[in-house]
Amino acid sequence: MEFSADIKEILIRYRDIWSLRYALSLLSWDMETYMPPLASEERGEVRGNLETQVQRLYTHPEFIGLVENAKPRNEIEEGIIRVLKRWIKYYTRIPKELIEEEERTVAKAFQDWKEARAKSDFSIFMPTLEKIVELQRRKADYLGYEDHPYDALLDIYEEGLTLKKCERIFSVLKDISSLFKKLKERYPERHEIEEIGYDERMMRRLIEHVLSHLGFDTSRARLDTSPHPFTIHMGLYDVRITVRYEGKDFRRALMAAVHEFGHASYEMNISEELRATPVQSGASLGFHESQSRFWENIVGRSRAFVRRFYDPMLMAIPELRKYDEEDIYTYFTMVKPELIRVEADEVQYPLHIGLRFELERRMIEGDLKVEELPEIWNQRMEELIGITPPNDSLGVLQDIHWAHATIGYFPTYAIGSMIAAQLYYKLELADRVKEGKFKEVMEVLRERIHKHGSVYSPEDLLKRTTGEYVNPEYFLRYLNEKYS
Amino acid sequence: MEFSADIKEILIRYRDIWSLRYALSLLSWDMETYMPPLASEERGEVRGNLETQVQRLYTHPEFIGLVENAKPRNEIEEGIIRVLKRWIKYYTRIPKELIEEEERTVAKAFQDWKEARAKSDFSIFMPTLEKIVELQRRKADYLGYEDHPYDALLDIYEEGLTLKKCERIFSVLKDISSLFKKLKERYPERHEIEEIGYDERMMRRLIEHVLSHLGFDTSRARLDTSPHPFTIHMGLYDVRITVRYEGKDFRRALMAAVHEFGHASYEMNISEELRATPVQSGASLGFHESQSRFWENIVGRSRAFVRRFYDPMLMAIPELRKYDEEDIYTYFTMVKPELIRVEADEVQYPLHIGLRFELERRMIEGDLKVEELPEIWNQRMEELIGITPPNDSLGVLQDIHWAHATIGYFPTYAIGSMIAAQLYYKLELADRVKEGKFKEVMEVLRERIHKHGSVYSPEDLLKRTTGEYVNPEYFLRYLNEKYS
Repeated sequence: MEFSADIKEILIRYRDIWSLRYALSLLSWDMETYMPPLASEERGEVRGNLETQVQRLYTHPEFIGLVENAKPRNEIEEGIIRVLKRWIKYYTRIPKELIEEEERTVAKAFQDWKEARAKSDFSIFMPTLEKIVELQRRKADYLGYEDHPYDALLDIYEEGLTLKKCERIFSVLKDISSLFKKLKERYPERHEIEEIGYDERMMRRLIEHVLSHLGFDTSRARLDTSPHPFTIHMGLYDVRITVRYEGKDFRRALMAAVHEFGHASYEMNISEELRATPVQSGASLGFHESQSRFWENIVGRSRAFVRRFYDPMLMAIPELRKYDEEDIYTYFTMVKPELIRVEADEVQYPLHIGLRFELERRMIEGDLKVEELPEIWNQRMEELIGITPPNDSLGVLQDIHWAHATIGYFPTYAIGSMIAAQLYYKLELADRVKEGKFKEVMEVLRERIHKHGSVYSPEDLLKRTTGEYVNPEYFLRYLNEKYS
Repeated sequence: MEFSADIKEILIRYRDIWSLRYALSLLSWDMETYMPPLASEERGEVRGNLETQVQRLYTHPEFIGLVENAKPRNEIEEGIIRVLKRWIKYYTRIPKELIEEEERTVAKAFQDWKEARAKSDFSIFMPTLEKIVELQRRKADYLGYEDHPYDALLDIYEEGLTLKKCERIFSVLKDISSLFKKLKERYPERHEIEEIGYDERMMRRLIEHVLSHLGFDTSRARLDTSPHPFTIHMGLYDVRITVRYEGKDFRRALMAAVHEFGHASYEMNISEELRATPVQSGASLGFHESQSRFWENIVGRSRAFVRRFYDPMLMAIPELRKYDEEDIYTYFTMVKPELIRVEADEVQYPLHIGLRFELERRMIEGDLKVEELPEIWNQRMEELIGITPPNDSLGVLQDIHWAHATIGYFPTYAIGSMIAAQLYYKLELADRVKEGKFKEVMEVLRERIHKHGSVYSPEDLLKRTTGEYVNPEYFLRYLNEKYS
């Protein structure tokens, strides 16, 4: 595609930002994988400096002028300008002092949160969290909003998301909670397979085999190891995922790999013509999560997946031989009360998110005090999941997000599950998944979602592909059908 | 140390350059180690863009003004201004068009050189090399020089180096050539140990053990694998080396590791107060090479080294058991005619460099035509080493340097060998090496050389530590004593 002259000029300047972002991604990846331990402070300085250079480029008056005056001539150009305006708004509205104060607070928060979690003592983290909530409320004021300050924060992570939309999305929590309570009676507390150990090299071989079948292209992508699995993309030709090998309960490593593969496939399937432009990236965090959850839960925890990879699983872990495909499917899809969000099965997962949404909203409103968090957390866990955390480490202190000052982020996880189910039905992927036609599934996702990058806002993209915005009914239907 | 106000302001601005360079180093390291193959083109674009951002920062009128007007108040501040002026001169004198033309030519040269070397046909590379020589002559004119255009090119790689100084350094080539011809009769053509295979994991263990004893600190450094061994530093707390495992002839992997360790130790021992300043780096390429050669040749190929690590070598390669320490010392120090520079023993190595120096100088003078290179190369190899290359791949086409347009670089290798020997005698390291007191050797090098970074010009630093500029007599003495 040939861009118009004014867009071309913007894209030439944008190359500086793109290149810095590319380097920042590599610096992050390296930090989580291979960086020598003593380098972390210096690395933080470098990243902070390069972020500042990015901000300086976005807020350069000439650049802003070009973006403001651009006349986009087609959908791609409109997307480019839309995304750039979002960034310019973000970088120009928030004062440098607030960013610096947030950085200082987050640095302290990380230490406090770590200590609080280790000692299971919320009071250690409480004062810093109070500061963070206050900073986020100020941030919302700087960014601006129509109805509710939480809207401003939600929009940072999911373009166009509002409290109202969240409320509709989370309206199904009651139904999910009922389903969950009914289902949990069906499964044992632990499955024997969880205890089976594995050899790390064989496990890695299994993961490489599965990912290769699903379409992970190692000429453009890598698989490494890190303490917490993640996906990062530098350019269109360099996308990296990581997993962690715990030595037993092989589903965790395998599902994490398939989850990260879902993120990676999205970035790798973006159209070449969007390369090195502001729209070369997934449409939103929610959309990104929809892809990882699609591959992890809808594909990875399907009978077809277990059938397809039963032999390779036995190759990697010979002790599995006494279990048949149905045993492994049960192990993959067990529903049981879980205190920790990241360990939760796909049925209860949105309940964990719903709880965080509820508490964030009330903290931002000022209706809920930070000091009240542990009590209300435990009470709501009992209502939603049916268990009370025995301590704060297994409760309110489990997630790092608030210590990172990313209030407004959690809802994107639930949106991911919802969008995944919506695509499953509306793009007619259900039969293909059931028949194990995973390559066809990928082809549809690539054509309908991936290749567009962030040309369309997440809301527009979802309406284009499914005819409506996030509708939680599809997720309910998916759970009811799968666990009927 | 507290810097003066004007230097402080410069250093704050310099942080942007330092951070970009840090990222560029990681991008390079990653390219040689872990980058997915299809990413190389995109990676090249990113690096080119960030290099341009570095250049833009160096040539910013405000920054130049600050540097020009700075009043350094001590040696460190003088060093900072000296180094910055060098870079500013480089970036402001060479026109953008020349850099772009050089980049295009080098991209083509790399392809042509690769093809020419594969087919052993110099004529394929000849036209591009002619273009490169012409560009380097133009570059010399832009940079300026007093006596000879080659001086301008030499100075890029070794501050203050001139043709005249090179001629003094290379004046010992005749003596080295005679020594070499006498020595080569003493050794067999191949040593049995060269054929002994090794297990890569055990070899890696041996290298880790040796480097750890020498002082390689893995909390600030890494060891990886790459097609060509190299060292790269990001910051003071992140220095990385690579080696290559060929599966036999274990001396090659081990000596490459010790060589790169020499480079790495230099960067890791630079004083903390120079961190993130323009003088946080080795004094010059020649000085850097002096450290790697010191550790590789003077330490690594010493009887004390063989004695110290005889047991670990046998642990790693049990087949070595039938060889005693003297056998291994002979294998480590064999002198025999070698066509390929990078395979050459320490006696003949400077002869290979001397040949390249002679040809470069004459090409830049215009006295030698590119088309005459193969013939004169072969003739001089016969005179210096006593063998004629059977083809151009094993002769004039073996090195990548000219295809990279880095004419003037080779002499730094010979300077490295010379400086290493000079430090060996003048810093009274000879006894410590012979007694295997490697930690004491490192302590002296750290105090006298490393910690100063590039505060002093290489010439000043050498004079400060040894009382004179490069004097090749020390190297002759070292060879004569070792091989007497």
